[in-house]
Amino acid sequence: MTGDGTTRYGYLGPEGTFTQMALLAWSASHEGEAVPFGSVDSALDALRRSEIDAAMVPIENSVEGGVSATLDALASGDPLVVIGEVNVPITFVLAARQGVTLADVRAVGTHSHAWAQVRGWMDANLGRAAYIPTLSTAAAAAGLAEEGTEQGYDAAVCAPVAAANHGLEVLAEDIGDTAGAVTRFVLVARPGSLPERTGADKTTVMLFQRHNRAGGLLELLEQFAVRGINMTRLESRPTKSSLGSYCFSIDFEGHVLDERVGEALMGLKRVCAEVRFLGSYPREDGAQVEVAPLTSDADFAGARDWLHSLRRP
Amino acid sequence: MTGDGTTRYGYLGPEGTFTQMALLAWSASHEGEAVPFGSVDSALDALRRSEIDAAMVPIENSVEGGVSATLDALASGDPLVVIGEVNVPITFVLAARQGVTLADVRAVGTHSHAWAQVRGWMDANLGRAAYIPTLSTAAAAAGLAEEGTEQGYDAAVCAPVAAANHGLEVLAEDIGDTAGAVTRFVLVARPGSLPERTGADKTTVMLFQRHNRAGGLLELLEQFAVRGINMTRLESRPTKSSLGSYCFSIDFEGHVLDERVGEALMGLKRVCAEVRFLGSYPREDGAQVEVAPLTSDADFAGARDWLHSLRRP
Amino acid sequence: MTGDGTTRYGYLGPEGTFTQMALLAWSASHEGEAVPFGSVDSALDALRRSEIDAAMVPIENSVEGGVSATLDALASGDPLVVIGEVNVPITFVLAARQGVTLADVRAVGTHSHAWAQVRGWMDANLGRAAYIPTLSTAAAAAGLAEEGTEQGYDAAVCAPVAAANHGLEVLAEDIGDTAGAVTRFVLVARPGSLPERTGADKTTVMLFQRHNRAGGLLELLEQFAVRGINMTRLESRPTKSSLGSYCFSIDFEGHVLDERVGEALMGLKRVCAEVRFLGSYPREDGAQVEVAPLTSDADFAGARDWLHSLRRP
Amino acid sequence: MTGDGTTRYGYLGPEGTFTQMALLAWSASHEGEAVPFGSVDSALDALRRSEIDAAMVPIENSVEGGVSATLDALASGDPLVVIGEVNVPITFVLAARQGVTLADVRAVGTHSHAWAQVRGWMDANLGRAAYIPTLSTAAAAAGLAEEGTEQGYDAAVCAPVAAANHGLEVLAEDIGDTAGAVTRFVLVARPGSLPERTGADKTTVMLFQRHNRAGGLLELLEQFAVRGINMTRLESRPTKSSLGSYCFSIDFEGHVLDERVGEALMGLKRVCAEVRFLGSYPREDGAQVEVAPLTSDADFAGARDWLHSLRRP
Repeated sequence: MTGDGTTRYGYLGPEGTFTQMALLAWSASHEGEAVPFGSVDSALDALRRSEIDAAMVPIENSVEGGVSATLDALASGDPLVVIGEVNVPITFVLAARQGVTLADVRAVGTHSHAWAQVRGWMDANLGRAAYIPTLSTAAAAAGLAEEGTEQGYDAAVCAPVAAANHGLEVLAEDIGDTAGAVTRFVLVARPGSLPERTGADKTTVMLFQRHNRAGGLLELLEQFAVRGINMTRLESRPTKSSLGSYCFSIDFEGHVLDERVGEALMGLKRVCAEVRFLGSYPREDGAQVEVAPLTSDADFAGARDWLHSLRRP
Repeated sequence: MTGDGTTRYGYLGPEGTFTQMALLAWSASHEGEAVPFGSVDSALDALRRSEIDAAMVPIENSVEGGVSATLDALASGDPLVVIGEVNVPITFVLAARQGVTLADVRAVGTHSHAWAQVRGWMDANLGRAAYIPTLSTAAAAAGLAEEGTEQGYDAAVCAPVAAANHGLEVLAEDIGDTAGAVTRFVLVARPGSLPERTGADKTTVMLFQRHNRAGGLLELLEQFAVRGINMTRLESRPTKSSLGSYCFSIDFEGHVLDERVGEALMGLKRVCAEVRFLGSYPREDGAQVEVAPLTSDADFAGARDWLHSLRRP
Repeated sequence: MTGDGTTRYGYLGPEGTFTQMALLAWSASHEGEAVPFGSVDSALDALRRSEIDAAMVPIENSVEGGVSATLDALASGDPLVVIGEVNVPITFVLAARQGVTLADVRAVGTHSHAWAQVRGWMDANLGRAAYIPTLSTAAAAAGLAEEGTEQGYDAAVCAPVAAANHGLEVLAEDIGDTAGAVTRFVLVARPGSLPERTGADKTTVMLFQRHNRAGGLLELLEQFAVRGINMTRLESRPTKSSLGSYCFSIDFEGHVLDERVGEALMGLKRVCAEVRFLGSYPREDGAQVEVAPLTSDADFAGARDWLHSLRRP
Repeated sequence: MTGDGTTRYGYLGPEGTFTQMALLAWSASHEGEAVPFGSVDSALDALRRSEIDAAMVPIENSVEGGVSATLDALASGDPLVVIGEVNVPITFVLAARQGVTLADVRAVGTHSHAWAQVRGWMDANLGRAAYIPTLSTAAAAAGLAEEGTEQGYDAAVCAPVAAANHGLEVLAEDIGDTAGAVTRFVLVARPGSLPERTGADKTTVMLFQRHNRAGGLLELLEQFAVRGINMTRLESRPTKSSLGSYCFSIDFEGHVLDERVGEALMGLKRVCAEVRFLGSYPREDGAQVEVAPLTSDADFAGARDWLHSLRRP
């Protein structure tokens, strides 16, 4: 917390982004101040410099996949950990200044990820409109609202809240090509406290392979399988050293305090060049982990007691 | 080929992109006409409609990772196959109109992927410059060169060839944060011919898991491991149906005509919901596949002959 | 068959052994002549020399385990194959000459395997009786019945039929320590014909590992697992070259004509130093093989057709 | 130890057996009294009743395989543990009373396991001689030496020391079919002390599978593989409940105090119905365990420290 005791939350701004919506959903139950940043990197840098207490950033989208900027920013630099997650349904509108009609639209501004998700609607309804990239969907809306400037586009693809914030008119609602699209956001903090174990937890790690290990990814996945742990996300990311050199960002069910998770992490620590622990935190949906048979804490504790009895007969 | 016998190659344009450089490298040994497209999607759509004969598109970058637009465009729609690959070293310059100096630069235009790769240099040398997204690095350069327009930025991050094409002055060379960055491009065609087996081949597939199979990715990777096949790239991509539902884009060593590859593909075909075969083609570097012991064609043929002798005693 | 058209079946004799009972069970549905042999080796040697057409020999007992003499005789020498199996419940009686009572018994003769299975009863009821080993349980009974000789024992542990054959009195019935004990016998023939596929089949192999392969037995078992094949028996046997050098005798569900079995056998052929195919034959109990999902012949045929379409686009 | 402080060693007797030779080899460095028993069972029973302090019993032979009586006696009943091993080269002689020549031999007495190992020599040199089973090789020799009795055989297959003990003449030396045959004996004790870790240790376990676990033996072997542990012996033994129900007797490299061994044992304890720990003890040959990369105690300790730091940030 800052000097005055208020928690300061950074987020990928400006106001009106889906990230802000994620933070609002979180803040409904957590007091604090919201601080917009121009990029994931700048938000996480501010967090590392202790200028803020936590940062809400997107990590994966059900249509577009992993968010590289977030995955890479967490994978290097001073350690940060995820302490919570929020899933936000993604709904796009086409918004314009008052008086502009669909027939008037010659160019559309939005973030490239949003553009990728509305291409079908655009081809069907605005086939001739040019695409102008913007820094965020909210920035596209803000640009339209600015007096006396010319952005090169007459309509924006953005969140409903961004259109409302800027007094824009909605020309078309729910124009995303994939119904039910969702983006998952994570709240990131500096290490120092570990969210409590709830029984409905996830853990996130980044695994770097040793080059001289045969088997590669298979060997890593066996560390989970042999302890009955279920993965919920796997992304490969280049290590930036050379083409074909990858690391893996993985979410799995369970908490670092779970016995089976602890043993799997130790196994990974041994066989990987590096394991970056990125936090254990409650699932937003509260779904209890289905513990595979024979992998409960009691099973592990029983096995440990038995081992102790063998070692001190 | 088109009516007049000329091969028409599409590429992710405009002129001056790294994709054009990849196509030029390919064309050095292959005659044909080059046709720029505004997006990966539009190039592959034209290919599917037989308006072009092949398309050069980026598939992975050593710093930024897999190119989602390409992976997703190959994963759905009418089948297409990779018939070749080209690796292009990625070198960025900062370019501006004649007379502009580094001190004059208030805003920089470029594609968001390029921006991600020069952030370190920018922070160190142009910390206060704003970032203006553009459709491509070449478009950023082209924008600067246009007479009588105002793009909102005074310098572009682009390939050296784009700066040269547009008569721009290079303010700084080689400004990428990662030395040795490389982008891998693939030449895509409609199915119909299979590149010859060279002994230095790669095969690309997209694997969709069955939901009711325990083991998941581990089971898929075992299909490769049990035949001694080495993977060179693995990317997970959302299937777009729901958060946490993934498919896998995989490159591995060997050609579909290799026995061990054929058996692995049959195994995958059985256990996956869908296997999309995206081609077998020669590696650009010509590195011969190191066939694991006991997995040569002769080993498979010997085993098959033996099996036949058992079945017809 | 022999010259006169009669099938000659060898068996581990003499008359009255459990092996003869197995052969009688088989012969109920197969005509032929029964020829006793003094050992498994001599029966199989006669088979190899074409003096008989088939041989019934024990292969595993539910209490005593694998029958080494049979496993080893099948593992070396000219190839032989199993063409059928018979399970025989093992019931032991204590038999003596007429007039002898339990209180009179000072020493008991029987085969060492039978002795091992009645030790509990003996300790409880004849704790002071000495044990005299004999060549077979039937030989123990025969010895008692011989006029004018002294065998050094006054009672025999044998099959009920052996006691009856030799006019002995049964002092105690069903004296085996393990209720429900069963011995499995196999009918062995020279290669040349393959029993038909019934859908309720077993296959027997002997696997010899390569010394330079890491993973060892695990690698062999994966060849079954990856094709969904269920093992029903695994015995390790020394290769006789040095302590700690083993081969594996394995029964598994399915027939060599099944696609999944064929592919598994080819995989084993590649990775093993030697695979000795010891036959595919119907299960005695007629239990249909539960084909694991995605491993039916149709699944394999579909995958093969698909592979062909990829290879000849 | 017994009341007077002398260690009492039981062994599979009588005098002159290979087991006695194993005990003599052990006793060269350990004081004590040797007590012969008529069977493995009776020796181990005496040990369980504290009538002796340790028992030397055979566990595997390089030609004949595992010794079922020992494996089964260790697998059930009150727990016992192996505290040492001795390997004895097996050399057989054919021995007879003074004056008997090879041409006089009509019948040969010996233990059935020994008979199996000299069958080749017998077929070549004494093809017509009958085989008379005896309780042990030493008993065969002793029988010949007994005055005034008739054993039904005129020559014995036994160890050279047994022939010498009984004043027999050696008709033929080194008649075993397999050169270099070795039997491995283990010294068994009641639990209570654990042999020190030497870096050249073996551990013996008996594993009982759960019936409802898919994967079976493969799952068990993975517990070793994932910790880089090398197995040196695997025997399947029937559980005696039904045909096809097995447990596994396994020796592997390492000591229960080794970290990797402890973790593997805990994993087995969880997934097995029962794990019977049968001791960690120094290898007779003193060969240091080759610890697989990344599986040393230091690797495990480092991983554990790291895990603790994650759990208490």
